[in-house]
Amino acid sequence: MTTTTQENYLDWLRDAHAMEEQAETMLKGMADRLEHYPDLKMRIEQHISETKEQQRLVKSVIDRYDTSNSTFKDIAGKVTAMGQAMGGMFASDEVVKGSISGYVFENLEIASYTSLIAAAKVLGDQEGERIFTQILEQEKEMAKWVLEHLPDTTQKFLARAEAPDTEAKK
Amino acid sequence: MTTTTQENYLDWLRDAHAMEEQAETMLKGMADRLEHYPDLKMRIEQHISETKEQQRLVKSVIDRYDTSNSTFKDIAGKVTAMGQAMGGMFASDEVVKGSISGYVFENLEIASYTSLIAAAKVLGDQEGERIFTQILEQEKEMAKWVLEHLPDTTQKFLARAEAPDTEAKK
Repeated sequence: MTTTTQENYLDWLRDAHAMEEQAETMLKGMADRLEHYPDLKMRIEQHISETKEQQRLVKSVIDRYDTSNSTFKDIAGKVTAMGQAMGGMFASDEVVKGSISGYVFENLEIASYTSLIAAAKVLGDQEGERIFTQILEQEKEMAKWVLEHLPDTTQKFLARAEAPDTEAKK
Repeated sequence: MTTTTQENYLDWLRDAHAMEEQAETMLKGMADRLEHYPDLKMRIEQHISETKEQQRLVKSVIDRYDTSNSTFKDIAGKVTAMGQAMGGMFASDEVVKGSISGYVFENLEIASYTSLIAAAKVLGDQEGERIFTQILEQEKEMAKWVLEHLPDTTQKFLARAEAPDTEAKK
């Protein structure tokens, strides 16, 4: 493999790591704000633990490929920009938009690891392939859970919004 | 149904319409830039046609509920902010990031219509429910297609990036 493929791979690995850091920030913010949706809060807290482990695993792949020992490049660009935009959704404190944003972010992760697995195969990085496949399953489970519960979340939100003196949003 | 539920529904319908307009802009930009990925380009062009019809269908639901005859509110907020952030990804002209962004945006649509279907049920809007279910299937098909082709897209990109004097990105 030439340098170009390894460079692309390393760039994507760094994006994935930044994405998982953004995921942790978003999930924590949402879990902290949720008050009236205990199942959603509990599932998010479970996924925060998974996300921290995913960060460690992705970092282990980076460490094998990053021979420069350089500090992380500032990749405050694409992924973070999208994360911030989605963070703005969360900030509205609205559980429906928050659930949608969470589902969308999980799907960003699903697509990213699907692409990383294909790249790992080109490079013959079997350890990376194994790690990304394991993470991919966790992201798919989380996305599935959020989407399956979204109709309930929506209807519960609408019911609470109708009731006087309730705080429907969180 | 009280006004509150109808107001939430109408807000979400307007968000969905803005989302489809954003989708059209993004898909057109990507289709115009793609040169070396004819299957992807063709699938995107097909989905642009679907997206235009979806805009019309969502508008028809809005027209039934928007009794104010007001012009569209400026919903330049959440959805558009995310669209712009993703548009920034597209602007990098990189087919892998573009495919990931496209997949993510399709999943924003999937979650939005899943939520809208639940809201339509609360309001007893059977026509809306039918329309959103039909659109949801198209979004799921598009998301599935992009994800299934993402490994090939990734590997083709990496191969083209290795070859001298090729323009791998588009």
